[in-house]
Amino acid sequence: MTRTLIRGGLVITATEELRADVLVEGEEVAALLSPQASDELAASAETVIDASGHYVIPGGVDAHTHMEMPFGGTFASDTFETGTRAAAWGGTTTIIDFAIQSVGKSAREGLDTWHAKADGRCAIDYGFHMILSDINDQTLKEMDALVAEGVTSFKMFMAYPGVFYSDDGRILRAMQQAADNGSLMMMHAENGIAIDVLVQQALAAGNTDPRFHGQVRHPLLEAEATHRAIQLSRVAGCPLYIVHVSASEAIDEIVRARDGGSNVFGETCPQYLFLSADDLARPDFEGAKYVCSTPLRPIEHQAALWRALRTNDLSVVSTDHCPFCFNDQKELGRNDFSKIPNGLPGVENRMDLLHQAVVDGHISRRRWVEIACTTPARMFGLHPRKGTIAPGSDADIVIYDPQAQQVLSARTHHMNVDYNAYEGKQITGKVRTVLSRGEVVLDRGEFTGRAGRGRFQQRGTCEYLV
Amino acid sequence: MTRTLIRGGLVITATEELRADVLVEGEEVAALLSPQASDELAASAETVIDASGHYVIPGGVDAHTHMEMPFGGTFASDTFETGTRAAAWGGTTTIIDFAIQSVGKSAREGLDTWHAKADGRCAIDYGFHMILSDINDQTLKEMDALVAEGVTSFKMFMAYPGVFYSDDGRILRAMQQAADNGSLMMMHAENGIAIDVLVQQALAAGNTDPRFHGQVRHPLLEAEATHRAIQLSRVAGCPLYIVHVSASEAIDEIVRARDGGSNVFGETCPQYLFLSADDLARPDFEGAKYVCSTPLRPIEHQAALWRALRTNDLSVVSTDHCPFCFNDQKELGRNDFSKIPNGLPGVENRMDLLHQAVVDGHISRRRWVEIACTTPARMFGLHPRKGTIAPGSDADIVIYDPQAQQVLSARTHHMNVDYNAYEGKQITGKVRTVLSRGEVVLDRGEFTGRAGRGRFQQRGTCEYLV
Amino acid sequence: MTRTLIRGGLVITATEELRADVLVEGEEVAALLSPQASDELAASAETVIDASGHYVIPGGVDAHTHMEMPFGGTFASDTFETGTRAAAWGGTTTIIDFAIQSVGKSAREGLDTWHAKADGRCAIDYGFHMILSDINDQTLKEMDALVAEGVTSFKMFMAYPGVFYSDDGRILRAMQQAADNGSLMMMHAENGIAIDVLVQQALAAGNTDPRFHGQVRHPLLEAEATHRAIQLSRVAGCPLYIVHVSASEAIDEIVRARDGGSNVFGETCPQYLFLSADDLARPDFEGAKYVCSTPLRPIEHQAALWRALRTNDLSVVSTDHCPFCFNDQKELGRNDFSKIPNGLPGVENRMDLLHQAVVDGHISRRRWVEIACTTPARMFGLHPRKGTIAPGSDADIVIYDPQAQQVLSARTHHMNVDYNAYEGKQITGKVRTVLSRGEVVLDRGEFTGRAGRGRFQQRGTCEYLV
Amino acid sequence: MTRTLIRGGLVITATEELRADVLVEGEEVAALLSPQASDELAASAETVIDASGHYVIPGGVDAHTHMEMPFGGTFASDTFETGTRAAAWGGTTTIIDFAIQSVGKSAREGLDTWHAKADGRCAIDYGFHMILSDINDQTLKEMDALVAEGVTSFKMFMAYPGVFYSDDGRILRAMQQAADNGSLMMMHAENGIAIDVLVQQALAAGNTDPRFHGQVRHPLLEAEATHRAIQLSRVAGCPLYIVHVSASEAIDEIVRARDGGSNVFGETCPQYLFLSADDLARPDFEGAKYVCSTPLRPIEHQAALWRALRTNDLSVVSTDHCPFCFNDQKELGRNDFSKIPNGLPGVENRMDLLHQAVVDGHISRRRWVEIACTTPARMFGLHPRKGTIAPGSDADIVIYDPQAQQVLSARTHHMNVDYNAYEGKQITGKVRTVLSRGEVVLDRGEFTGRAGRGRFQQRGTCEYLV
Repeated sequence: MTRTLIRGGLVITATEELRADVLVEGEEVAALLSPQASDELAASAETVIDASGHYVIPGGVDAHTHMEMPFGGTFASDTFETGTRAAAWGGTTTIIDFAIQSVGKSAREGLDTWHAKADGRCAIDYGFHMILSDINDQTLKEMDALVAEGVTSFKMFMAYPGVFYSDDGRILRAMQQAADNGSLMMMHAENGIAIDVLVQQALAAGNTDPRFHGQVRHPLLEAEATHRAIQLSRVAGCPLYIVHVSASEAIDEIVRARDGGSNVFGETCPQYLFLSADDLARPDFEGAKYVCSTPLRPIEHQAALWRALRTNDLSVVSTDHCPFCFNDQKELGRNDFSKIPNGLPGVENRMDLLHQAVVDGHISRRRWVEIACTTPARMFGLHPRKGTIAPGSDADIVIYDPQAQQVLSARTHHMNVDYNAYEGKQITGKVRTVLSRGEVVLDRGEFTGRAGRGRFQQRGTCEYLV
Repeated sequence: MTRTLIRGGLVITATEELRADVLVEGEEVAALLSPQASDELAASAETVIDASGHYVIPGGVDAHTHMEMPFGGTFASDTFETGTRAAAWGGTTTIIDFAIQSVGKSAREGLDTWHAKADGRCAIDYGFHMILSDINDQTLKEMDALVAEGVTSFKMFMAYPGVFYSDDGRILRAMQQAADNGSLMMMHAENGIAIDVLVQQALAAGNTDPRFHGQVRHPLLEAEATHRAIQLSRVAGCPLYIVHVSASEAIDEIVRARDGGSNVFGETCPQYLFLSADDLARPDFEGAKYVCSTPLRPIEHQAALWRALRTNDLSVVSTDHCPFCFNDQKELGRNDFSKIPNGLPGVENRMDLLHQAVVDGHISRRRWVEIACTTPARMFGLHPRKGTIAPGSDADIVIYDPQAQQVLSARTHHMNVDYNAYEGKQITGKVRTVLSRGEVVLDRGEFTGRAGRGRFQQRGTCEYLV
Repeated sequence: MTRTLIRGGLVITATEELRADVLVEGEEVAALLSPQASDELAASAETVIDASGHYVIPGGVDAHTHMEMPFGGTFASDTFETGTRAAAWGGTTTIIDFAIQSVGKSAREGLDTWHAKADGRCAIDYGFHMILSDINDQTLKEMDALVAEGVTSFKMFMAYPGVFYSDDGRILRAMQQAADNGSLMMMHAENGIAIDVLVQQALAAGNTDPRFHGQVRHPLLEAEATHRAIQLSRVAGCPLYIVHVSASEAIDEIVRARDGGSNVFGETCPQYLFLSADDLARPDFEGAKYVCSTPLRPIEHQAALWRALRTNDLSVVSTDHCPFCFNDQKELGRNDFSKIPNGLPGVENRMDLLHQAVVDGHISRRRWVEIACTTPARMFGLHPRKGTIAPGSDADIVIYDPQAQQVLSARTHHMNVDYNAYEGKQITGKVRTVLSRGEVVLDRGEFTGRAGRGRFQQRGTCEYLV
Repeated sequence: MTRTLIRGGLVITATEELRADVLVEGEEVAALLSPQASDELAASAETVIDASGHYVIPGGVDAHTHMEMPFGGTFASDTFETGTRAAAWGGTTTIIDFAIQSVGKSAREGLDTWHAKADGRCAIDYGFHMILSDINDQTLKEMDALVAEGVTSFKMFMAYPGVFYSDDGRILRAMQQAADNGSLMMMHAENGIAIDVLVQQALAAGNTDPRFHGQVRHPLLEAEATHRAIQLSRVAGCPLYIVHVSASEAIDEIVRARDGGSNVFGETCPQYLFLSADDLARPDFEGAKYVCSTPLRPIEHQAALWRALRTNDLSVVSTDHCPFCFNDQKELGRNDFSKIPNGLPGVENRMDLLHQAVVDGHISRRRWVEIACTTPARMFGLHPRKGTIAPGSDADIVIYDPQAQQVLSARTHHMNVDYNAYEGKQITGKVRTVLSRGEVVLDRGEFTGRAGRGRFQQRGTCEYLV
């Protein structure tokens, strides 16, 4: 078994900052060592990587991506190949993407389709959540089978009637099943039935600009659905994970539930932390680049999001990476904001943006690792293989230069999309080296991995059950 | 014009307790007088009623009754004739009943039907709310017309899918219309979609007893719907009145909204204050007598209801009078609680039960008048004609003996139903005399009114808009 | 007995708006009459006052004034004579002033002193609260005696160590006594011990300008003391009235207590509703005119105050009238904000400013009467004599012209102070006629009353006990 | 350097559960190794400890002990020698005791006294907090000096007037100093001024039994002081740690502060989790054994405490170990509960009781380690030396048998006190081996350490600042 020693860095995990060396044997971490202890082993290491002056952190875990996702007649522009490669560039070594059950079809069929898309193409490891669009007696049984195969989390939608939408009865039934089989229920929490009324009224009034996308998806309708999902989960007795929380009013609902001891968790995304409704209102249809759901909110919501990240009322930052090119794709909605494909690129930028949050004083270094690596791994049953650096864990490791300067830009990014949502943003910090299961897949600006190296991860159940 | 002088009583209104005499001329109150001032007028009065030792209060306003309501293939057992007569016996001089728009029909047609049922039959004055079961462009226009005719409040249901249920989009549209035309939106706030799943599961598990009615209609599903209705009303900008609040968790949602300054109001009913899930669990199918929705709750909820009545987080006590005989009617659900007609009798007992609450120390005398007479009149645009004793107001007056003793019983009540929900309960206090628009319709145990005396009341809009 | 008939006005009380006439006999209201009924009596009236086009409201009750109050080596500039006359000009017919027990002296001695100041000098009726500065076994007994004499409310201070300050033990003991004797405890809720540290630090840093008065009296130190007073009152089991609430954080504490059913009430003052920290920061020592405690807050707090007035989380608006002339008096603190006498003039402007709030849409007309007349009367045991227009109540009546225009100014006001806190403010609405116990004391810009007409009012206990 | 290898156990930290071996070199952990990697090193280890079937956890950190503390004329019965030895028996390898500044003396003098008591006597490592009883200009300067010496946390008392009590001004000043020098302010949060009134009243009424100790120390007076301390800390801008939280109402205040993003932390103790007011009410003066402050609460509070431990609204479980013998010491208060020395023994039982909480399902294994080892170390600046098992950390390690059965009893415990608060309680789990800085000090029921081995720990500042 090949042996690699990462020496001289500052190892940062969710709870520790250690001057320690990391011994990798084959695909796994074999030891964490004090500098003295590692001297003995250094000789026997095939490779010694110097991490002096750098952070040594677990590879990022992005628990929310949509590669090649069909939406409104088009597809997200990153394939599993391009998207996972971009992820690696950005220091993310595991993604959890969403397989989709379509209405009238089985979950199995959806999962098979997604396996086919991803298999042999991924640069990094990956898992699947399952989107349930059609709950019935048959689907409920399938949930148990999927859990047994390592697909242990299920997402439902309170929005998008006629597409992904499930009514409260179906949601309750799925939640009851989750309570039985130990899986985690994920929720897109927006009252889509009410929103669609407002969409129609806006369009009828001639309000077709992208900024109306933000206005019709009212913060109170996110708060409402969040509260509803929480109460249904309490009736069912299952844990609940709210995806892409953006409104401070929705956070308030999560806070209430968590204060009461419920197993309710919230995720937010970099776009809600760094962008706002002002971007949606950019002139010349530029706002379309920022159309996603839940929508970007007025800038006052950012303070509430940062605070909730610090208080752990929000537990995870994922990307909801779902890129559509401005040309050809976003343009589908030039005369009707409701036809703009929903989604933003971001899988490559998450780790850097959150490091910038460390530099800006929003969060600590350990919290950075926690919300970007450890908690998503624990939440979705990938831990301790992923999300930490410890003996026996997969050697998914990022060597991060905390002083490097970079500017985010579509000109330099590796995502397959013609714009960058953070175009021109100056970032302090940059990924230097990425190991995926012991192998260097990225080093000093050179991608050394390959499509197909990434392996499907069977996941266990959530660690966070009270 | 005939002139009647009510002398020597203690006039109690929502804010005053006065040693004053009341001069009635024709159908209206002409004056409130100090005893000395009334001496001058006493000679000219055709009738002088001695109220010494008694309270003189505004006639009760019961804002929630269902006479002859069709439900599950049968009809509520009180007609407008029997029900309004029973109301008069109990010191209530105005009811607001619910006309029903059926699915696929116009609101107008529903209102006409209810007018036909009530016209010429009522012993006391009455108004109508309109239940909207089918919101569409046409119905929305009808709302404005109904407001112009004095039907200024509209009720929607988040429960009973397939019957009264409206989805959130329809609710939002109706609320927007209400925001425009000044009407008040009333809501049956239970998540019926989720409840129906639990009903089916309970029945499938053989849990057919009436007590399961209470279990499947989970308090959190009342709280959920209450919160949802509130958020939708905030989006629409309309006032909201939640009917028959029974769960402490639902009260919490109303408290939050009111603390924030929203025009959200709550109603509860005597059955939630004096009865509990223990009654639903009575053996030998006796529990069926106590089946109503929202359901009776575990007894701990009572303390929260009383507190909310004191803090004005609940503003009104109505009866939701909807009687079904135990024999023949309640028995429809002997093997399936979901087939038990939902509803309890109570229109005759409300004023007495709430006076008992005064005796028990739950509320003050003024608060008794406020929640039972004044606030419902103000809430539903009947004030100042109804709900108070003041010059120009209708002379709907109750002379109440605060010391009399009585026992509630089906053997002595006047409601057309074969049981009394409070059978055997000892009450301190009893109606002695009732005037409806200046005419004595009940006196010392004799009903002196007649069917058809009661007049339809065109109502104005709610006084309580912030 | 002389008989006066007020005809043609709109009678507004806390719950009613009536087209009714008011018959006054001697000092009391004898009847409220419909226009027809009053025709019979009109002939026998010595005086008929035409109120057409005007409001007829109860005289204002200002529950918080400090005439001739000693403070920092000077005295509030309004005597009972000048102050009560100015009150009458402004439509206020009753004040409750604060008698002061000094440290080391008896409450009796303080009360006697204040009786001597007021006796024979007041233009309108008046009562006394008692400020307790020195609680001990003897004072506790005196409380009972004072209650028997109609001094039924006691104020304590959590601020001003060495002067009025009481520690928590003394406060608790007084509250226990209040729980026994039925009196109402009033609290100046600011943490004076902590504030004095900040005062010394500010002065030591050379921060002597009036605006620092607002900074050292931190909103959180008002919220803190408010919470503390509430908990102590809950331990003691007595009702509590927080005076001059100004910080939104303090309101939050009152809201929590009231939601929980505690007998906790809040008062605010016009200066907190209409002025702000910006006034405290006026240049050239002009800020000194706005020095009072609790201090004026940043303007954002106003919205919370208005909302709380609407939700009844604040129940009363009093003035805390305590004027000091800018020249000679406020100037005492020119080089040290802590030496500026604390207090603002306002007794003459309250009713007008609150009517302006009606015009501005903050509150309804009935709520105007409620917070300015009815609730203070009920709160402090003056009702039903004061605070309403009803048979048997004192004929303290204001005929108010809702359309008149006026400009508030020291040039035209009648308070004995050389500035007006609202100088130049345009007001819609103006007092036309004021009756005090049946006698016209002000009419169309002429004061027709006299010093000494006002009578001391023995008060009963608070009506608001849950 | 001696080399020890701990093999085959399950290493549990706050975030990980690892099948890993621990290499100890000298006093420190040199490596965490996968079983394979450790094979290479096993040969070179002087000692190999077999931990198969056992947990390998960081040594416990008890952040709240009072060895030999003077109280009410007597001294806590455990010396630093007996108390730290008992701690080791119970799996605790670090304590933080409280040095006391007396009124009128310097902090330095207090610290020197405590150093003298502890020096050369401790079996395990120890640090000191400083109790400040007399804040003035001089003491404030001393705080900075003490921080430089590794005494980085300061405790103040809102109770015990005349002894430890500080008024709000002194507290504010100390908090401002802490905000500057980075230290952590600890608070005994009970309103002692109000409590002393209730104590005197209880005694005057002849209520001398220990159970009255619980009644006079009212839960609302703990909540009050907690809120007050929080607001003062927000004004000062310093972090705050509330010791021995026992009342659910106090938790509510901490929850509010934490939800708002304040650096406020709560500690509870095993006695509040496992004992209740029922113990205080034991007959025959047995209740005296359970007299401590804050007092044991009615049993309903336990659920709130457990929930807050799960939600991290309470962050630490310490013992507040302060034993007084029932004979001779507790008996001082036989006729007057206020003379009973306040305090309970517990330093030996904490780790076991909290493991029992794992067995009972209250908390997870990782949370056990977190609240008992890691968080106290991070909170008080001992981490990463203490509180974790990682390269470079002190080799303070407990090998814990999760299946062993034991019964807590004074007959078998090692604390120097004649009763055990948990006498007869059955516990699953038991310490097998304890290493203190690499040396086995306890193994299989034999104490192999020695007085004086323990070393004073200079502490850094709190890791938890937002």
